[in-house]
Amino acid sequence: MKIAVDGMGGDYAPQAIVEGAVLAAQELNVDIILVGHEARLERELDRLQAHKLPISICHASEVVYMDEAPGMALRRKRFSSIRVATELVRSGGAQAVVSAGNTGAALAASTMILKPIKGIDRPAIATLLPTQKGSAILLDGGANVDCKASQLFQFGIMGHVFAKSVFHKPSPAVGLLAIGEEDSKGNEVTKEAFMLFKHSDLNFLGNVEGKHFFQGMADVVVCDGFIGNVTLKMCEGLADMYGQALKTSLTASPWRRLAAWLLRSALTEIRQRVDASEYGGMPLIGVNGTCIIAHGSSTPKAIKNAIHMAKRLAEEQVTERIQEDLERNSDILDVDDNRRSKLWRQIRSHMSFRGEREVDDAASEPHDELPSSHIPLL
Amino acid sequence: MKIAVDGMGGDYAPQAIVEGAVLAAQELNVDIILVGHEARLERELDRLQAHKLPISICHASEVVYMDEAPGMALRRKRFSSIRVATELVRSGGAQAVVSAGNTGAALAASTMILKPIKGIDRPAIATLLPTQKGSAILLDGGANVDCKASQLFQFGIMGHVFAKSVFHKPSPAVGLLAIGEEDSKGNEVTKEAFMLFKHSDLNFLGNVEGKHFFQGMADVVVCDGFIGNVTLKMCEGLADMYGQALKTSLTASPWRRLAAWLLRSALTEIRQRVDASEYGGMPLIGVNGTCIIAHGSSTPKAIKNAIHMAKRLAEEQVTERIQEDLERNSDILDVDDNRRSKLWRQIRSHMSFRGEREVDDAASEPHDELPSSHIPLL
Repeated sequence: MKIAVDGMGGDYAPQAIVEGAVLAAQELNVDIILVGHEARLERELDRLQAHKLPISICHASEVVYMDEAPGMALRRKRFSSIRVATELVRSGGAQAVVSAGNTGAALAASTMILKPIKGIDRPAIATLLPTQKGSAILLDGGANVDCKASQLFQFGIMGHVFAKSVFHKPSPAVGLLAIGEEDSKGNEVTKEAFMLFKHSDLNFLGNVEGKHFFQGMADVVVCDGFIGNVTLKMCEGLADMYGQALKTSLTASPWRRLAAWLLRSALTEIRQRVDASEYGGMPLIGVNGTCIIAHGSSTPKAIKNAIHMAKRLAEEQVTERIQEDLERNSDILDVDDNRRSKLWRQIRSHMSFRGEREVDDAASEPHDELPSSHIPLL
Repeated sequence: MKIAVDGMGGDYAPQAIVEGAVLAAQELNVDIILVGHEARLERELDRLQAHKLPISICHASEVVYMDEAPGMALRRKRFSSIRVATELVRSGGAQAVVSAGNTGAALAASTMILKPIKGIDRPAIATLLPTQKGSAILLDGGANVDCKASQLFQFGIMGHVFAKSVFHKPSPAVGLLAIGEEDSKGNEVTKEAFMLFKHSDLNFLGNVEGKHFFQGMADVVVCDGFIGNVTLKMCEGLADMYGQALKTSLTASPWRRLAAWLLRSALTEIRQRVDASEYGGMPLIGVNGTCIIAHGSSTPKAIKNAIHMAKRLAEEQVTERIQEDLERNSDILDVDDNRRSKLWRQIRSHMSFRGEREVDDAASEPHDELPSSHIPLL
């Protein structure tokens, strides 16, 4: 198993990346191809005395930096490390690619070079998050901003296959992120997607509310990339606020600092329980090849974990399995979008929606339950 | 100042509601009209020996229960407490209404009975949340599922006026919830809304990312009700998971329980810092009248706080001020939606989007920065 690692992408590249690659080569039984500036990568390998490990270097003279516009940079920089690394997967020189660099560039490279799987419009970013029961996948995490119902359905299939691989469950439960559990709750796109899921052979749970995500109600939760990205970042912000509040309160006096020191093992335990960085990377699924996007600020350990995930997904042939699942559900997706929209409108007009439609359009679809502005902490 | 309180709505109605009304009558210099079943409300007032307070009862024989379909229930139950209470505001018998009952019913009642303010398509739920700098408003919290750009703009105006009133700032900063700070980041609707905000006289910050919300970057953050609701509930779920993790870890041994007990004042401090229940209620803004929706599980203190917020908004004539702001920005909203869409498409086709468009449509709009699946806690 050969894995191409973008040696130049990430806030701490190439040091942290090469260190992570060395850890992976030592522990994971993989061959690593470090892609990037040869001399700089050599220097890092020298520093780590890692020349006996199964690590080779593939030279790439350019780098797409974090603040560059992805599409533009990718087009201009034909010899950028992310582009060369992705080309390695296309040519069969590697079985997977891992990058902690510019996410947009990694996404664009995989879409342009590896191309979406037949039947998939665009790839999605699958995000593994901790839940009260273990972990769950939210997708799309931000690759696709405006999605059609058929795309949400494709995300469901991709998430289902990915979940089978990472959770080792025969039939992972798939839910649709919405504002209420009833079938009729959602926006126009999710309501239409609901019908597609309902007629598929997936283990479809129905609508899942935000608060149920962290309760671990579903293995896979589907939403469009705008909602996924906004939501994930809101959660990141909230977690950060909690962390700050804890820090401020627990260090406010010498007495509290002492008590907090006594509780340090408990605090570490909590961090481990709710921190997702252990997963190391997010797969970009739906293209012909395995791509893992690692966070820009990845530590060597996170890079090693990302390589581990890449190895696992490549071994379990997630791409091929998505193709199979798509074929099995092709009749649902074959109906073209316009016809399905029409169909859905017809179905809807026959559904009574509990007779509310007649009252007042403005008042007919408020949802019953409000999010609590009350955020319980303890 | 007379405030109509739905005495029958809420998980702990009528007890908690009447207790909250009594607290408000004692502390806030308001007259309360409790709306609901006369005998039951009388019994509660007897129990609390509150007959000397400025609290009167307005009989309403029916109740819309929490699990009822709002529109239907409201149409059938002409003498429901929420309907009668809202009618009191319309007739001038009260200056505001507070309900902890079925949110959809409160929303439908205010829309049907009080009607949206001229220039506002539909009301929105404004949610006050704690941030690292104090608090901020997210709207819409769930009243409107599919929104047009003009509606998002209306939410911005409503949020701006509400923020002026609650934060006492002359020019609160308004942001648009999106997936990146650059002007071009967002979905079709937010990109169009961006242009409206940019040409308004609001203090418009531009796009605000989810993680910046809790950093307190903006006073008001605008999104559609689907995204708002999903996001708020995700945050609620995450907060709950953190609370559980803390509880489990801090009570795992007698030693830890002791240390946690020593830290109890710090833990209470943290809860107060990040818990939004102190606010008591969420205003439904954009109708001709003041409506506060309190959480179903409101305690008497939360009800009192909701009444306090109702009083404040009614005193500060938030409704009238929204009307003024709308008129000042009427030229922006006057352009009808179709024309604006066309205009926006024209503007967009002239914008180069940093030249990316040409590359590959699939690869041209990935965003640069991914949400961290790493949720930092400490």
